[in-house]
Amino acid sequence: MNFEELVQARHSTINFVKEETMTEEDFKKIFDLTKLAPSAYNLQLTNYLVITDEAKKERVRELSYNQYKIHSASAVVIVLGNKNSIEVSEAEKIYNPLKMLKIMDELEFDSTMNLIKGYGDQLKADPHQLEMELARNSGLHAMLFMLSAKHYGFDTCPMHVHNVDELRKEFNIPDYLEPMMLITIGKSVDKIRPRGYRKPVGEFVNFNGF
Amino acid sequence: MNFEELVQARHSTINFVKEETMTEEDFKKIFDLTKLAPSAYNLQLTNYLVITDEAKKERVRELSYNQYKIHSASAVVIVLGNKNSIEVSEAEKIYNPLKMLKIMDELEFDSTMNLIKGYGDQLKADPHQLEMELARNSGLHAMLFMLSAKHYGFDTCPMHVHNVDELRKEFNIPDYLEPMMLITIGKSVDKIRPRGYRKPVGEFVNFNGF
Repeated sequence: MNFEELVQARHSTINFVKEETMTEEDFKKIFDLTKLAPSAYNLQLTNYLVITDEAKKERVRELSYNQYKIHSASAVVIVLGNKNSIEVSEAEKIYNPLKMLKIMDELEFDSTMNLIKGYGDQLKADPHQLEMELARNSGLHAMLFMLSAKHYGFDTCPMHVHNVDELRKEFNIPDYLEPMMLITIGKSVDKIRPRGYRKPVGEFVNFNGF
Repeated sequence: MNFEELVQARHSTINFVKEETMTEEDFKKIFDLTKLAPSAYNLQLTNYLVITDEAKKERVRELSYNQYKIHSASAVVIVLGNKNSIEVSEAEKIYNPLKMLKIMDELEFDSTMNLIKGYGDQLKADPHQLEMELARNSGLHAMLFMLSAKHYGFDTCPMHVHNVDELRKEFNIPDYLEPMMLITIGKSVDKIRPRGYRKPVGEFVNFNGF
């Protein structure tokens, strides 16, 4: 399947094959591609909680208006924005290897850390902007997750997340991780389903002004 | 190039070939794939303003800390969240064709519009949540835009958007469109550049709880 075919083939699945299961190895392959998503300053602000356990998945379903696709999916994935990733201490872990390999010199390393400190301080002073940054980055990451899943033969459906406080309690999600969306994943029952109508390009793209 | 190669090949470009130009046709091809991105209730909440005009592009550069890559890129693309798209009148335009083609019956159409009305009213009552929804959807859309661009031979770099009010005034961006990010696009000077370090999967993925 070439890229155009892959993009055409991926669409939101409403009905999964209940008997299909997924292993941690299946997810490892998907995430090994997903991790190549871009992020602000390469800070990799997106984490995931993958729920494959049947009873735990049912609990997510209860907290998500009882949606059937969570029941029939092989897993439900909680996409999380990581508030810690804007800390300089976290940035250092990502940039230290570059300094050690002398891909980045001491001066460049320090100025990058300074830049990231300014960026992080600004976001910490404005909770709305911090969450917006996590939401944007999660969106970029989650799209690559869904395409990678399709590439390895798995169908997905992105969903809103509900009852965040209960979800947090149920799975001990730490405070620095903010649930951004859910993705159900598995094998679709319907191999061919008509896609929803899409606006023509002229209706959502402008050139050089309005 | 298969999908794995495409994902490996895409990475944020810091240096574009200044002489390269892009046509509206180039963008039309990219957006014809990008429009297949999923969105909440298929409401297609993401719009784009593509700036190819040299003088206008320089103006974006001035409003973006004078970053050189906006100068050397063939175009800079403003990714916009569309607040109008959550209105029932807009939803009807998307779902009417399904009703007319009898893919959706009257009852299903009405209940979908009701659902969307509830969803829209909730977001309109909470500006933070509305912007978060636009940010998430923009992220999903923008990742597909960047991969589609790479598929057709164009390199990209996602960037923060700055000085939104001035940008809005300069390009007459209507109030209902909210700038979410910038993407520079063109041909990369460096064909092979070491990719930034990525955390191993075990550091950003948990299974079944914390």
